[in-house]
Amino acid sequence: MLTNVRSDRVKSVRSLSRRSVRERTGRFVVDGPQGVREAIRYAAARIDDLYVTSAAIERHNDLVAAAQDVGLHVHEVDDAVLAAMSDTESPQGLLAVVAAQPHTLEGVLADDPRLVVLLSNVRDPGNAGTVIRGADAFGADAVLVTDGSVDVLSPKVVRSTAGSLFHLPVVTGLDAHTTLDALAAHGIRTLAADGVGETLLPDVDVSQPHAWVMGNEAWGLPPEIRDRCTDVVRVPIHERVESLNLAMAATICLATSAGATRRP
Amino acid sequence: MLTNVRSDRVKSVRSLSRRSVRERTGRFVVDGPQGVREAIRYAAARIDDLYVTSAAIERHNDLVAAAQDVGLHVHEVDDAVLAAMSDTESPQGLLAVVAAQPHTLEGVLADDPRLVVLLSNVRDPGNAGTVIRGADAFGADAVLVTDGSVDVLSPKVVRSTAGSLFHLPVVTGLDAHTTLDALAAHGIRTLAADGVGETLLPDVDVSQPHAWVMGNEAWGLPPEIRDRCTDVVRVPIHERVESLNLAMAATICLATSAGATRRP
Repeated sequence: MLTNVRSDRVKSVRSLSRRSVRERTGRFVVDGPQGVREAIRYAAARIDDLYVTSAAIERHNDLVAAAQDVGLHVHEVDDAVLAAMSDTESPQGLLAVVAAQPHTLEGVLADDPRLVVLLSNVRDPGNAGTVIRGADAFGADAVLVTDGSVDVLSPKVVRSTAGSLFHLPVVTGLDAHTTLDALAAHGIRTLAADGVGETLLPDVDVSQPHAWVMGNEAWGLPPEIRDRCTDVVRVPIHERVESLNLAMAATICLATSAGATRRP
Repeated sequence: MLTNVRSDRVKSVRSLSRRSVRERTGRFVVDGPQGVREAIRYAAARIDDLYVTSAAIERHNDLVAAAQDVGLHVHEVDDAVLAAMSDTESPQGLLAVVAAQPHTLEGVLADDPRLVVLLSNVRDPGNAGTVIRGADAFGADAVLVTDGSVDVLSPKVVRSTAGSLFHLPVVTGLDAHTTLDALAAHGIRTLAADGVGETLLPDVDVSQPHAWVMGNEAWGLPPEIRDRCTDVVRVPIHERVESLNLAMAATICLATSAGATRRP
């Protein structure tokens, strides 16, 4: 059992809470049973190390067995070591160090996607994670993220995706204009989700391949991005309400695209 | 200008971050421009005091003017006083102390509601606030909250409602069974939103008065509540995804009820 909270190993895992270290090493941390389970299922070959407390080995014995089945070594650690490795205040006893998988826009487009999400300058980790989770739930083929956005491999984003990060390609560091060009060239309609839109969500044709384009939490999409989209779409809300938050709007748009609220 | 961070006034406002003090005094705190603006618009008579920093008086002069128009006295405070009054790490310069408005289930039912939400044992402040905001956005007539749930007047819930708390009645402290009885007696269909449901959301008839019944974030609705509902409804999601989070599921159900995703 690992018990030395001052070891180089602990410091090295903990340092992955910094973006610069993640970028240099190409590694990130997955914290908690839900994320670790999906990492084992969908990305076992990319798991460098798996750290589990004695209590979590008992509580999640199915998960530990699944890890051993695919040949992963499980490091047993004490609570203090896990707490020192994790950036969360209430770690849940399991933590994996995983190699990032770089996806490209070209790779996504080569698979003829029918539903994608483009996040432009989204800064809040919870929002970004929730959108990735929603994209996954409603069968999107990819999430595209511009370079001014939050790092999707930050612990908070990874946690709030609840494992969805391992289910679909998330492409990062994109330029919004180049991406809109590439989507248009592939015949993918771009739908800006924005409260100023004149097209209402129930009137959108979601039968053709399309991309939902979502802007920043506070200031939305810049006009030069919005105006380049095929259409600007508004979720109809009560007039007394100023706006939906980003994650809510994205969830509703994606659910509608998937036919989860109406038959296609 | 108020500058004494140790004054009784500051201590008294700060103490409202405790549930016991809110319950004893019948007062709660609204923090930030969005919430304060809606309090002034919809509940001016219930505002005891309004505290604004010099910077916020300049930045939100329309809001300060609106407060003065309705006869509210605006206390100018320095940054330290506002920070000491607020429970948030980054206060936004405005804070109001507001008297709670007790709503009752009987009052809500007397208005023949067509769309309500019942939250049973919802514990996370962000989830509760987001559901209230979604209920408001999609024209719900009320939000009903059982007594095992988070206090909707806690600063975190109030903040995440973004002012919606002042737009529709939120009834708290309810017993789930009594509430289901009362809804049934008024001919309001109760729709349990739960991943185990066999009815899919697109198949639900939302043309009749109905209540969405949402359970706890982690363990959902207890079977004895779920089984008493008219129907158990599932949002169809991709099989690789375990579940939607509570706020996402509620938002999608409410948007569907409102015809925001499909024509009614």
